[in-house]
This record gives sequence, C-alpha cells and structure tokens, in this order.
Amino acid sequence: MSELDLQSILDFTIALAYEAGEVILAGSEAIQSVGSNVDEKKNSVDLVTEYDVKVEELVRKRISEKYPTFQFIGEESYAAGSRPEWTDLPTFVVDPIDGTTNFVHGFPYVAISLGLVYKRHSVLGVIYNPFIDYLYSGAKGLGSHLTRGGPQGKKRKLPFAQSPKTLASLSQAQIAVEWGNDRSSKPLQSRSKSFHQLAGDASVEGGKMVHALRSLGSSALNFANVAQGGLDLYWEIGCWPWDVSAGVIIAQEAGCTVTGGHQDYQATKDTPTFGDVGESILTGRKYIVVRAIGDSPNEKGADAQKRIIGEFYNSVEDYNVSG
Amino acid sequence: MSELDLQSILDFTIALAYEAGEVILAGSEAIQSVGSNVDEKKNSVDLVTEYDVKVEELVRKRISEKYPTFQFIGEESYAAGSRPEWTDLPTFVVDPIDGTTNFVHGFPYVAISLGLVYKRHSVLGVIYNPFIDYLYSGAKGLGSHLTRGGPQGKKRKLPFAQSPKTLASLSQAQIAVEWGNDRSSKPLQSRSKSFHQLAGDASVEGGKMVHALRSLGSSALNFANVAQGGLDLYWEIGCWPWDVSAGVIIAQEAGCTVTGGHQDYQATKDTPTFGDVGESILTGRKYIVVRAIGDSPNEKGADAQKRIIGEFYNSVEDYNVSG
Repeated sequence: MSELDLQSILDFTIALAYEAGEVILAGSEAIQSVGSNVDEKKNSVDLVTEYDVKVEELVRKRISEKYPTFQFIGEESYAAGSRPEWTDLPTFVVDPIDGTTNFVHGFPYVAISLGLVYKRHSVLGVIYNPFIDYLYSGAKGLGSHLTRGGPQGKKRKLPFAQSPKTLASLSQAQIAVEWGNDRSSKPLQSRSKSFHQLAGDASVEGGKMVHALRSLGSSALNFANVAQGGLDLYWEIGCWPWDVSAGVIIAQEAGCTVTGGHQDYQATKDTPTFGDVGESILTGRKYIVVRAIGDSPNEKGADAQKRIIGEFYNSVEDYNVSG
Repeated sequence: MSELDLQSILDFTIALAYEAGEVILAGSEAIQSVGSNVDEKKNSVDLVTEYDVKVEELVRKRISEKYPTFQFIGEESYAAGSRPEWTDLPTFVVDPIDGTTNFVHGFPYVAISLGLVYKRHSVLGVIYNPFIDYLYSGAKGLGSHLTRGGPQGKKRKLPFAQSPKTLASLSQAQIAVEWGNDRSSKPLQSRSKSFHQLAGDASVEGGKMVHALRSLGSSALNFANVAQGGLDLYWEIGCWPWDVSAGVIIAQEAGCTVTGGHQDYQATKDTPTFGDVGESILTGRKYIVVRAIGDSPNEKGADAQKRIIGEFYNSVEDYNVSG
C-alpha cells in the first residue's frame, strides 16, 4: 500500500462527521420526546441507545464504500463481539457517540470520534459535537483545527493561543478528570484520593491546589479541549482506543504531549508519543495529555510538559480498572 | 411602585445579555492572544480579569439608565466594597462572568447571569453563554426558554421533554457538583467524602452509584442545564446570590424544585422555594435544584423531587465554607 493521502481522507472524514452529526441530533430529539429508548449494557452508568448502533453502522458503511481495504474497529461492533486483529493496515477506530451518558440525559457535551490509525500510530482524527457545532480535526503534518458554522464555516488553527502560555505548576492548571464507569471500591478509592489531593490547598496533606478540576464526560472532547487550550491537562485510566484515537493526533498536532500511565511515562519520557508507549494502543487504557506550553527564558515548552506530567503523576495514584 | 411589567423587563434583559456577550467574547480573544491580562484576587483559583469589571460596568450603566429606581448588586462591585442594604425593591443581582476560571482558560462553559429579585424573591433571569450561543431566560408566570441563533433565533420551552421522565433513584441521575474555591481541609474532606459515596457502587460503604458526576465550573449554567433537563440535580455549598439569582427562577419556571441546605430543606420541605428558606437570599450559600419529574402511577412528580432531595441529603455531608 502506498502512503496515505491524508488531506483527502480528512475531507472525507469531516463530511462523514457532519452526516453522522445529523443522526446524533435526531437521536437526541427522539430520546427527549419518547424518554424510553434506553437500554442497559453493564450497569446504569453504561447506557447504550439504538442511536449508538445506528451511527456506527452508517459510518462503517461509508468507510467500507470509500476505503474497502481499511480495517474498522468501532465501540459498538467491538462490544458485540467483532474484534479484528490489530495490524499495520490503515484502521478507522470509531466511537459513534462519545459521552453516551451526556447524550442520554441531553447534556450537550457529546461527540462522534473518528480516528485513523496507521502502522499502529494515530495519524488522523475528527471529533464533532453537533449540539454546539464544534468540529475538531487534525492529521499528521497538517496541523489541527476547530471549524464552526458547518462545512463552509470558519476554520481556526489549534491551539487558539498563537504563543502558548507557560505553565509554572499544577496550581495554575485547569484539569479534566473523570469518575468513569468502574466505581468499585479499589479503583474508586485511588481516584477519590487523587482528586482530593489535586484539589486540596496547603492545609491538605499532598494538596496541589490545582486551579480547577472538571469532569465533563467525553474523553474525545477532553482531548480536543486540551488541544484548543481550554483545558491544561486531562488524565484518565480506563479509556478504550475509540475514545482516544482521534483525540491523540489532534492533540499532538496542536503541540500537546500525550502519553500513557505512570509506567509508560517513566519508560519513554524522552519521546512520549502515542504508540511508542510500552503497552499497545489496544490495551493501554491509561492516558495523559498536556497542552502546548510556550518556552520561557529558563525552560523549553517540551521540557515543561514533561515536568508537569511528572508533577501530576507524583500527585495521583496509579491503578487498574476491572472492566 | 406598581407591579413589574416582567415581559418588558425580560426583553430589555435579553438584549442586554446579548450586548454583554460581545464584550465577553472580545475579552476571551484578548486573553487568548495576550495571555497576561490576568490578576489574582484571593488565590490562584479565584481569578478576575479586567473584563469582569468591564462587563459589570456596562450592565450597571444600562440598567440605571432604563430602570433608575432599581437596586443593583453585582459580584465585582460587591467585591470592591459596594454592599447595598437588601430591600423589597426590585434589585438586579448580576454576575458579569460566571465561570471565571473557565473564561480565563478559554473553556466555553461561561455565562453572564442577570437576575431580578423583587420582594426578596427571584422573579426574572437571563443566563447567556456567548461562546456557544445558548440564551436561557425565564420570568415568574412566563415560563422558561432556551433561545439559540441570536436575538431572532429559535426559542424553545424548558424543559425540553414535553412529559418529563420519572426518576426512581439517584442511581439514574446525572449530577453536577463543584470543587469550588474553598479547598481547605475541613470543607474539602466533606466534599470528597460526599462525592466518593455518590460515585461508589455497592462495594463502597454508602455507595449510591449515581449515573454520572459532573463538575463544569458555572453555577448559573448548572441551574440552566437542570432547567433544560440535561442535568438531573445540582448541589453546591458556597454560591453567592449573583451565581443563582437568575438560575433559580429559570429552574422554577421549568418545573424544578429549588431549595437551600440540609437545614432549610428539613424546615421547609412542604414548600421549598427560594426566598422561603430559613436563611436569607444574601447569606444562604447552599443550594440544591432538581429537574422537573413526571408523575408516575404511584407518585406525583413534586413528591418525587422531595424524595430525591431527601435521598441526596442523606448521602452527602453538610458543611460550611470559610470564605
């Protein structure tokens, strides 16, 4: 296979995101008016609606028509038992509706996430929130952008800040964390303790007094917002490839540093890029992303990103999710 | 003073919100490009920008021109020492930029909140997020609405659901809580423990396994999203009148129940409305709001709201903030 024409694939993927967005909006209307189209998957936190499946089927069909040789991994088909071998081939990795709980409740922090992985690296991504018409896109070597106002709308380079601010410490950072779906005793204890220390001031043992802690409910949009610069850092344990496949490249092309869990960071801190971390893209489950940081007289931005990740990982507990 | 013409005041307030929104957007652009217009107030969590003051001055000027007899309480003038007596006169209670931390970081969950309090009750409110063009409005007896697409845009009645869903327990609820600015040991301990129990599953002592916990960073928009139905419940200790004066009436007109802290709820659970709670509007600082709930065969919606508040207050710790 020759090298990929990323610009052409990006145009296709953006158009597909807009088409899927219409289905997501229609689904939301149906859920709001009927109020009973909701099924339980694993527990009450893990709702899936028929629209999740409907959107994934649409996306899969369009991709297979346009790029019949590409592999496909989607959240819904994976859940239904379709688990293709992970190869070096171009592979679309898709979450039809990221932020499903928000979607079910009608809270507009919801997106479709379309990522293309090639030779086990994320090379292209589109994340589209149709409720507020925010379309994030990025591809290897092409930069990242936010488009608003529909397909012919205004396109803006990411991050917004032309010269990104410095970041002296976590106390200046607005950080996204998530409570997630695994709420059993041990992982929850680690998470609670970590959040407590991040939030706490000097009177709290280990208190970091971060500027703000946010929990928003969509991994893909968290990545996108770090790329934009509206969040300084996002950390989560428990993500699946379809949650992050688009976000990773959008973030990287916007100057972010992305890496895995405590172990991966220690192992690869000189070159912490997705796919280079110790665990594979399919099984890593642990992610941290830090926004573009400007150079200061005493420190390069890239070094500041590593310093912030180090400070963060020294402030939170590592743990494993059970499902 | 004769009775207020709420429709006329509402039209004025909506137009004012759109005007102020332009200043907020300009401020955000300036902050993103300059990156240094940021001042510290109390600690690094409590940032105020010059645009906060600029927006409040604009709003105050417009109101005094149009309604010279109305009182005015604004976050910024209050912080600067202007603390008018609380009277029965019509009083605009204004937060020029609610979600200041989001604003400073460029995260688009930010709003101006314009509330009108009359005879110590919230009677009219407008909450406008200019970043995503969501304008929430409501007035006593006139219902609540979301307008999108600018002043001539599409107006939709709140809540979105024509027949609101039932709510069997907290385990089905998407709940907003906030880490707030007071991160000292004692209140933080109460908050962390409460969040831990809300999130925890059956393996966690006191675990309620709520559907989702969100922390978004704007009290006004949290109220608005409960009114819309995208959040089932929002609880916070530490709010000021300008954070909630608009949200309370928008929520009430959308069928929500709003009340104060544990004590207020116990004291007034038959008629829990804002202004009727034990502590005054200016000093209450504790708020809970639950979305409109539909009647079920066995339970009226209004009874279900009280049951949910009871279940919630039995699951979280009461505490007082220090500042």
